[in-house]
Amino acid sequence: MTHLLSVDDLERDQVEALLATARAAEPIARRHKVCRVLEGAVLGNLFFEASTRTRMSFAAAFCRLGGAVCDTTGFTFSSMAKGESIADTSRVISGYCDALVVRHPEQGAVAEFARATHVPVVNGGDGPGEHPSQALLDLYTIEDEFARLGKHVDGAHIAMVGDLRHGRTVHSLIKLLAQRSRMRFTLIAPPGLEMPPAICDRVAANGHLIETRRVLRQGLHDADLVYATRIQRERMSGEMREGYTPDFRVDRAFVDTHCGVSTVLMHPLPRDSSPGANDLSTDLDGDPRLAIFRQTDNGVAVRMAIFATLLGVESLLQRGLRDAPWRHPHRIGPMDADFHALSPG
Amino acid sequence: MTHLLSVDDLERDQVEALLATARAAEPIARRHKVCRVLEGAVLGNLFFEASTRTRMSFAAAFCRLGGAVCDTTGFTFSSMAKGESIADTSRVISGYCDALVVRHPEQGAVAEFARATHVPVVNGGDGPGEHPSQALLDLYTIEDEFARLGKHVDGAHIAMVGDLRHGRTVHSLIKLLAQRSRMRFTLIAPPGLEMPPAICDRVAANGHLIETRRVLRQGLHDADLVYATRIQRERMSGEMREGYTPDFRVDRAFVDTHCGVSTVLMHPLPRDSSPGANDLSTDLDGDPRLAIFRQTDNGVAVRMAIFATLLGVESLLQRGLRDAPWRHPHRIGPMDADFHALSPG
Amino acid sequence: MTHLLSVDDLERDQVEALLATARAAEPIARRHKVCRVLEGAVLGNLFFEASTRTRMSFAAAFCRLGGAVCDTTGFTFSSMAKGESIADTSRVISGYCDALVVRHPEQGAVAEFARATHVPVVNGGDGPGEHPSQALLDLYTIEDEFARLGKHVDGAHIAMVGDLRHGRTVHSLIKLLAQRSRMRFTLIAPPGLEMPPAICDRVAANGHLIETRRVLRQGLHDADLVYATRIQRERMSGEMREGYTPDFRVDRAFVDTHCGVSTVLMHPLPRDSSPGANDLSTDLDGDPRLAIFRQTDNGVAVRMAIFATLLGVESLLQRGLRDAPWRHPHRIGPMDADFHALSPG
Repeated sequence: MTHLLSVDDLERDQVEALLATARAAEPIARRHKVCRVLEGAVLGNLFFEASTRTRMSFAAAFCRLGGAVCDTTGFTFSSMAKGESIADTSRVISGYCDALVVRHPEQGAVAEFARATHVPVVNGGDGPGEHPSQALLDLYTIEDEFARLGKHVDGAHIAMVGDLRHGRTVHSLIKLLAQRSRMRFTLIAPPGLEMPPAICDRVAANGHLIETRRVLRQGLHDADLVYATRIQRERMSGEMREGYTPDFRVDRAFVDTHCGVSTVLMHPLPRDSSPGANDLSTDLDGDPRLAIFRQTDNGVAVRMAIFATLLGVESLLQRGLRDAPWRHPHRIGPMDADFHALSPG
Repeated sequence: MTHLLSVDDLERDQVEALLATARAAEPIARRHKVCRVLEGAVLGNLFFEASTRTRMSFAAAFCRLGGAVCDTTGFTFSSMAKGESIADTSRVISGYCDALVVRHPEQGAVAEFARATHVPVVNGGDGPGEHPSQALLDLYTIEDEFARLGKHVDGAHIAMVGDLRHGRTVHSLIKLLAQRSRMRFTLIAPPGLEMPPAICDRVAANGHLIETRRVLRQGLHDADLVYATRIQRERMSGEMREGYTPDFRVDRAFVDTHCGVSTVLMHPLPRDSSPGANDLSTDLDGDPRLAIFRQTDNGVAVRMAIFATLLGVESLLQRGLRDAPWRHPHRIGPMDADFHALSPG
Repeated sequence: MTHLLSVDDLERDQVEALLATARAAEPIARRHKVCRVLEGAVLGNLFFEASTRTRMSFAAAFCRLGGAVCDTTGFTFSSMAKGESIADTSRVISGYCDALVVRHPEQGAVAEFARATHVPVVNGGDGPGEHPSQALLDLYTIEDEFARLGKHVDGAHIAMVGDLRHGRTVHSLIKLLAQRSRMRFTLIAPPGLEMPPAICDRVAANGHLIETRRVLRQGLHDADLVYATRIQRERMSGEMREGYTPDFRVDRAFVDTHCGVSTVLMHPLPRDSSPGANDLSTDLDGDPRLAIFRQTDNGVAVRMAIFATLLGVESLLQRGLRDAPWRHPHRIGPMDADFHALSPG
């Protein structure tokens, strides 16, 4: 693996190796252990489009491996403003750095970056294109949650809810899940915001069941996962926004009525908590089924695994670990679930 | 101590412990020694309002302890622009970082950050609210200067000059000084810019003397400290600005005429050196009484102490220190005072 | 050497010592070795004018020595916006950092920074003024390329092409080259964009040959180096821009026809690859004579040498080195030249 540009480039055994490395990185990501394997290495963390959380997650992952981070942020890049090609920019910065994360508003721009360098490039999101590290951390979270609940990914029932047309995270995730066996997908979207048919066809061709719906409020009792998506208002026409009624709101009343006691709730975040947003509701905070913060926490371990794999140090992750001498909280957030209260349904 | 949000949360013994830790951190802050106790830790340095010097001071302090820093700057935060709540932002970033510094233009926003996480949060200034690390470094500087001059904080005469209404630093500092004994405060402000009565009442209730004045140019010969404040033009009405006449200018002529040979001069910085600003004058540069750069230098040691205390490594600060192998200047600035020339008055 | 502000401050033996230190730093800059001599040190990387590549190059150099970097970017600096003098800003930040890199849009502003501090200041470019680290990395590259080709800098024929009036890099480079013996310079610029006469006079006074031309397309067969410059459209009047015709374009046809088989091609980058720019052409990519990426790569080693020298650790660079455990590509870019194909002309 030279670069990580798209989940399409990943075979199932590569995905499993990455997730196994992420599991090995957990004690470091959770601040129990200190690792310095990348001490002396430099990450170029290039965000041509703002994304504070993704930028910080990648940066924290590289730092936890012992490396240092050089950030660029903002919509303009001074050299590009002077007419420099993406290829030149990529090659120049590759002379400074050991790995690059690139987020760019245009689909394909990150691949263009990667073509100009042998230094590993991670796609941190290219507009409507790909965001493979998000899909990997989503899959990692599903495995983690299901393992705790005594469930398996193979044969699971996965519901995806909301804007399935523009959400690149659900596009990438369903492709990764389609590598597994006998999956059942329920795809629930308002008119005009459905999952692209090409993706559905590909998933169905792999022998999985797909059911599509326009209404959220019925039979998800046996869903193992409800994956709600962020409403990307900026990419919607007025008509689509009208279809996004309060009926699509995933809140405590909906979950208690229509989901099971062990249905896992995920969301790529950020969720829109402003009035009338109809996004995943904050009244679910503290419910042990709500996995959204465990999901984002997992991003650090998964991104550590991506860097370790691309830089060929995955077998060194366990070596030379020492205990972190500083205090870390037992639970990160005061609403974080106490899992002893949660038993499988 | 979980968070550092306000000086109101600090008992006198906690303040003294923090300042003792800062004294232990001095050789590291002054680059004589290298400390790596926080190697592997990550600081989220979140500045929702620009403040380069404060941001760099916190960052340098964390780096001097061996940690790494992830910065965010600018008035917008991409997730918040998408409708994310402060609570979600705080919880998400807490999954990446071991400590957070937050500056925010709105009073109370930093406390809202802190309520959503068990990861320690330091208030780096919340609008007109609090800026506790500044008050602590001011107190540290007062103790340091007084010790050199053979003076004590208990029983001292402290003059505060300028805009005492909007200056959160003087609000926090006077609260900390009010924890001491038999203080005498002279508060000198133009009409409309006086210290808020609630703060004066609280200080007086602790048994300290407070005298208020509208004119600077008289009897500060026995003042142990003159603390001048930055003129916050952006928060003043036209009428207030008119009251801020050149009579309020603290310059060499004023100090030589009205202050003592051992009166310490402090200022939270930045000072406005543009024409007609009437701020603390640059003609005092090089005068040994001018402590403003020693004051800002002390910020690194004090912020190291804050991090070390919040992360529970204050007892480890002295361990495993080694000499810094690189050259550091004997005096940082060419105008820095030579203390042999300064004898107590 | 306290600061690095201008190549005018450098004697020839200082330049040679810096380049020797850069050669010693190469294995670290090329990621074969890990060095931690500046562990615990902090760089203030202050860019009051945007320059992502220069900022990242300095940052990477400091990180490769083991240090940590605090960045500021953007055209405004919050304290300066509040009326703070450059001297105050410099002195304050010097209390946080062990070295400062300053880029500023105004000529002389970096020297003003340096006058207020004993902490070493590196001029990262001050408007039309100086950019000494670029000149040093250019000279380092020339020595490196010439050594590979069995050539010497003394007695070489150097052609400089393009906007020689506004290009501070060629101004600084020609001064450094004028420290050598029996140089021959061919300066080719459109009308109005000629090298300033004062610089030509100084070079000629050192006994070097200077020929000036207005036309590119003739006799550079014996040129050892063609140094093309970036077209600084933002500093040109309309008339000058008209003189900058396609005749000034350095492309493969030109190089094959008018240059020699061992003529080295350099450029300070970024090059303008937008249509009609007439800058150094991308059709030369992959030509072993094109040294532009080796040139920018060399920036890291040269900047490491600058920091090591200013901080007095140049003799420690070789100590305690260890092998970098992570994978680095054999060639950074897919178009990077294979030098076995290149034999001296």
